[in-house]
Amino acid sequence: MIVLFTDFGIRDPYVGQIKARLAECAPGQAVVDLLHEVPDFNAHAGAHLLAALASNFPPGSVFLAVVDPGVGTPRGAVALQAGGRWFVGPDNGLLSVVAARAADRRVWRIAWQPEALAPTFHGRDLFAPIAAEIARGESPAAKLQQVDALAVEFDAGDLARVIYIDHYGNAWTGLRAVPSDARVSAAGGTFRYSESFGGVAKGEGLWFMNSAGLLELAVNRGSAAAVYGLEVGDPVRVQRPN
Amino acid sequence: MIVLFTDFGIRDPYVGQIKARLAECAPGQAVVDLLHEVPDFNAHAGAHLLAALASNFPPGSVFLAVVDPGVGTPRGAVALQAGGRWFVGPDNGLLSVVAARAADRRVWRIAWQPEALAPTFHGRDLFAPIAAEIARGESPAAKLQQVDALAVEFDAGDLARVIYIDHYGNAWTGLRAVPSDARVSAAGGTFRYSESFGGVAKGEGLWFMNSAGLLELAVNRGSAAAVYGLEVGDPVRVQRPN
Amino acid sequence: MIVLFTDFGIRDPYVGQIKARLAECAPGQAVVDLLHEVPDFNAHAGAHLLAALASNFPPGSVFLAVVDPGVGTPRGAVALQAGGRWFVGPDNGLLSVVAARAADRRVWRIAWQPEALAPTFHGRDLFAPIAAEIARGESPAAKLQQVDALAVEFDAGDLARVIYIDHYGNAWTGLRAVPSDARVSAAGGTFRYSESFGGVAKGEGLWFMNSAGLLELAVNRGSAAAVYGLEVGDPVRVQRPN
Repeated sequence: MIVLFTDFGIRDPYVGQIKARLAECAPGQAVVDLLHEVPDFNAHAGAHLLAALASNFPPGSVFLAVVDPGVGTPRGAVALQAGGRWFVGPDNGLLSVVAARAADRRVWRIAWQPEALAPTFHGRDLFAPIAAEIARGESPAAKLQQVDALAVEFDAGDLARVIYIDHYGNAWTGLRAVPSDARVSAAGGTFRYSESFGGVAKGEGLWFMNSAGLLELAVNRGSAAAVYGLEVGDPVRVQRPN
Repeated sequence: MIVLFTDFGIRDPYVGQIKARLAECAPGQAVVDLLHEVPDFNAHAGAHLLAALASNFPPGSVFLAVVDPGVGTPRGAVALQAGGRWFVGPDNGLLSVVAARAADRRVWRIAWQPEALAPTFHGRDLFAPIAAEIARGESPAAKLQQVDALAVEFDAGDLARVIYIDHYGNAWTGLRAVPSDARVSAAGGTFRYSESFGGVAKGEGLWFMNSAGLLELAVNRGSAAAVYGLEVGDPVRVQRPN
Repeated sequence: MIVLFTDFGIRDPYVGQIKARLAECAPGQAVVDLLHEVPDFNAHAGAHLLAALASNFPPGSVFLAVVDPGVGTPRGAVALQAGGRWFVGPDNGLLSVVAARAADRRVWRIAWQPEALAPTFHGRDLFAPIAAEIARGESPAAKLQQVDALAVEFDAGDLARVIYIDHYGNAWTGLRAVPSDARVSAAGGTFRYSESFGGVAKGEGLWFMNSAGLLELAVNRGSAAAVYGLEVGDPVRVQRPN
């Protein structure tokens, strides 16, 4: 399974061009759109989102991960094997949280260029063919050069900030494994713990551990983003019990 | 064919996770995104949309239908066989219009829990595996318990309200089989009947029976939502000829 | 490969219904969503976008191209073979730039009607079955009548206007093959040439030849649409060097 994770947007013609390339390079391979609305240019938020979401995918999945504002500059291009899954993308920190949390990992620099390489679309011309080759089970050894580590690494610990706001207005944070008796506040509001939305009154704020294992802020049948003015990057305060 | 019908939104990572689960549970099965922008939390509008849209799908289609603000509360989970098609989702009324209009129907309560069940994402963990099993043609009998009827049922008659507004600004209602000489008004405006958009002048309002069999309000090469201030839930008045 | 190119929007239930029809008519056929957000009703912008994007697709690709505000009126319906690819859609100019630029082209009028034809959804009922038949490699000769030319043709030269704005706020124009020492201005601003985004400072404007071969205006890690107030249709001025 090839899994797409980008900030290319869902309404633009970029994802379709990548899928056409994948269909050419790996015909019949299942391709899943996981997320194309990573906050624009935000490899840091993307790194934490990717690490949380990837853990639910089966071993052997190949992630094509592209949040790449430095495309066309000399930033590196890498393939990473971590936790039994593959990740292909820019070496700008986006893959570093996945790498840091994996017990086993191997990193390769992509040392290959296609004949036609658009300076602004390595997702289509460089990363997609490499991901397709890996998904087909072929060794792209001639195109990869093993290296010791990623060039850019972000802090892989919990991230006490809003990293994603979904279309309901629910705010995902980078925080994991928060006990239900912690006190959670953000944007001037305090949130009550509930296992799911219906555990609080309509219009009331809540926090819960979401389906990707991250602390999430929400409003039952409403928008936490609208009610509390939450935005990506906002800090979240958690007081864990003594 | 597995058909997805939800309010999960198209830009969030929820649909992708469901598709990955379906690809694991029913490899190679065709999956079609029908609608992921049912008005948020609105099972009532969703029930009428689903009934209208489903009738165009071939027998044997399996609908995964999730508009489920009560996820994680004790609301029921069901599988419905109606009109030769299958529907899997919450027992909150969403499937009830399909059920009421079918000459033949059978209802099962889902009496099974997966090992890992996120309290806020039954779409991925509970409904997707059941839908996959049905689509594979296997009997999920051990996981289902036949019951007499759905627990929650909405009025299945025509619904004289706006139930969906598309990106052009066209407003779908729940009304069916309205004759072309009826008088139609909504939001203070009166609409002219035309079989298609080009039958009225540019910028003029019209109503027509749409491709799903529902009465729709539109503006030729414009937005009825913007011109008339139409919103989901607005009443629509139809005076049928004597 | 069947490639979808429309203004149907990504959030509405139209694309899903087309895919369901394609899955019925051409089971197992790969279907790629290239673009569903062609500026609404704008066949002229669509014609230039289609011509630019299609050239990257492999021979044999079948494009289902629908920007069709005149659906249900007597406008024609056509199939076009050009440059080794197929295009099916309305005869309203949308396919005319592809046709004009191809060394070889053949045009057929669709002389067939399905039993059920919704007056507002020829994409599903008329164009999809024809595209499926062509993609299956069968000759739809009984349904097509060869004609000399398209009925509506747009100017196929370079188009010095904004024809698409992506979700980053980057503005695509219809201009091709502009040398890097040209002077480019639009909406009161002057843009600097750079091969990719990172070649200018954060927040600075730039122009480049994009991955579809078109001149594009952007702001590094920002939105050219927001910074310069650019909209689809805005003129772009290019002074080529002497």
